[in-house]
Amino acid sequence: MEGITVEELQLAARNHALPLETLRSPITPIGLHYLLIHFDIPEVDAEQWRLSVGGLVERPFSLSLEELQSRPAKTLAVTLECAGNGRALLSPRSLSQPWLLEAVGTAEWTGTPLAPILREAGPVADATEVVFTGLDRGVQGGVEHLYERSLSLDDALREEVLLAYAINGRPLPPQHGYPLRLIVPGWYGMTHVKWLSAITVGDGGFRGWQQEEAYYFQRSEDDPGTPVTRMLPRSLLVPPGIPDFLSRERFLASGQCVLEGRAWSGLAPITRVEVSDDGGASWADAELGAAVSPFAWTGWRFTWDAVGGAHELCCRATDAAGNTQPLEPEWNVGGYCNNAVQRVRVTVS
Amino acid sequence: MEGITVEELQLAARNHALPLETLRSPITPIGLHYLLIHFDIPEVDAEQWRLSVGGLVERPFSLSLEELQSRPAKTLAVTLECAGNGRALLSPRSLSQPWLLEAVGTAEWTGTPLAPILREAGPVADATEVVFTGLDRGVQGGVEHLYERSLSLDDALREEVLLAYAINGRPLPPQHGYPLRLIVPGWYGMTHVKWLSAITVGDGGFRGWQQEEAYYFQRSEDDPGTPVTRMLPRSLLVPPGIPDFLSRERFLASGQCVLEGRAWSGLAPITRVEVSDDGGASWADAELGAAVSPFAWTGWRFTWDAVGGAHELCCRATDAAGNTQPLEPEWNVGGYCNNAVQRVRVTVS
Repeated sequence: MEGITVEELQLAARNHALPLETLRSPITPIGLHYLLIHFDIPEVDAEQWRLSVGGLVERPFSLSLEELQSRPAKTLAVTLECAGNGRALLSPRSLSQPWLLEAVGTAEWTGTPLAPILREAGPVADATEVVFTGLDRGVQGGVEHLYERSLSLDDALREEVLLAYAINGRPLPPQHGYPLRLIVPGWYGMTHVKWLSAITVGDGGFRGWQQEEAYYFQRSEDDPGTPVTRMLPRSLLVPPGIPDFLSRERFLASGQCVLEGRAWSGLAPITRVEVSDDGGASWADAELGAAVSPFAWTGWRFTWDAVGGAHELCCRATDAAGNTQPLEPEWNVGGYCNNAVQRVRVTVS
Repeated sequence: MEGITVEELQLAARNHALPLETLRSPITPIGLHYLLIHFDIPEVDAEQWRLSVGGLVERPFSLSLEELQSRPAKTLAVTLECAGNGRALLSPRSLSQPWLLEAVGTAEWTGTPLAPILREAGPVADATEVVFTGLDRGVQGGVEHLYERSLSLDDALREEVLLAYAINGRPLPPQHGYPLRLIVPGWYGMTHVKWLSAITVGDGGFRGWQQEEAYYFQRSEDDPGTPVTRMLPRSLLVPPGIPDFLSRERFLASGQCVLEGRAWSGLAPITRVEVSDDGGASWADAELGAAVSPFAWTGWRFTWDAVGGAHELCCRATDAAGNTQPLEPEWNVGGYCNNAVQRVRVTVS
């Protein structure tokens, strides 16, 4: 890997990854879930804050946090992964947050469904999209903007889409979007707008930087590319044994060793996880557990007969739509969607 | 800066820093406090877990978590900073966790004082030290070990030293040492042993790797060095204005701008914070608030008249013992105790 720059390191310090041993927990404890914060965490006075719902609707209105909390509540376990997860493993790489493998987490989000709120506002006949505006402002790509993303009206009306005010049973902490964030189960993290302040129905004219400039999968600078949307399948394993502090290489004793991990896909349920102890030359099926929810990762286990020597452990997930993880990443300009298999070096003695 | 290696990046992903805007909070919210975890976060069954108190004592015993929680409780706000904070700003730098500036946090730790427990055990007449053993095991410097640190018996008997089972009013989360961690106010973070399982009184024979190999301030490889102990003074400011995503350079409008930040020292109370807007060529005094506790950081404010152009903001703390922050770091082999002033590039328009 080319050396990481100080700019990338600054981002790696701010933006927290999941320590891989935390994959043991079906629900990620607060403080261990990944974080990607483009600008600064805004200071929000929840007493003053309101969510506005407007644009091309019959009946624009706004809601206080209390009003949102008095609406029907729903709790969903949802796996979120950053679209840039794996970016630092591409070469050459886009200068941005240099994620390796661990930009993921699963939380129980509590909120109120978005669809009834949109229906109450009443999108006009030619409405096609919904823009979600956060309170976080900054400059990216030379353009000053509030963080904003849009969804098609059809995607925004899906019943699993939530306006979340709680995580793991507690009010959102500042870093997860207090007081309100959008949750769009199955989609990469950029979709789940934090510090949400406005929902604006439109007819397709939204050209926000985070929608039109970022988050496109482009095979070259000339490729117009395709928008990044739902999470590709990925599996991760809890590195077995004990680590070396610096290299994170693992050491364990020979004998039976239960490998465990999690797998997820935003495209379809996970149907298969395979494990390799020879860097992907040969594979064996792991035993799948139940998914934590229809929108969260699936646990898996594999009893490995660890024999002396050096090994490279890998795991590979496949979903019901036939998508599977590649052995090597597919390079792209922005460093998105790198779901190539994890590789963990282990010495068995 | 020389490019960061993949080994350092792996550590930067696992070990979380404080986003600097979070300095606005006197008490750091859970999930934003810095974390440095040498090995893996251990899985601990609190029902089975006991703290053993032994070694050169008259009456060795052990305590369950419930027994610890039924003892007299004390809550202290304590600022913790990693001894390696600032390491990545040294050149050449030691290959370890590549902290820039943000390896700090202040939490309200609740626990029971250590001194009465030591007195109940009754150190023998020639006892001089106390060894604290965590449950986290790994390899560092080629040596497999549990994470262990010692204190002199005198330091261990100080009334502010706690065995903490709660942070910010809640049970410790896994990453902060569940179910029990040592808190030694004023000392750098390596002292506050997490996942504490044993307290062993000794007579000076402890030679643990984390005590004797790591955490020495050595000016060269030949320098025997001095042990790293208490936190040197440091101040940090909340970067004003809005950031550029990648460079973290700041942009703000001209006019009066209130700069704010925090300052701390483990050696003596903070008595002065100065601010510079020209990279340290000239300084002006900031207004100090009250310390959050005798063992926590002090807030400060400075009304800056921001005029158009490029500026480099710095802040510099001084404590009652006359220690002050240097403009340039003092290089050392392990990359410890770099409390050189923070520098924030700002463009005013």
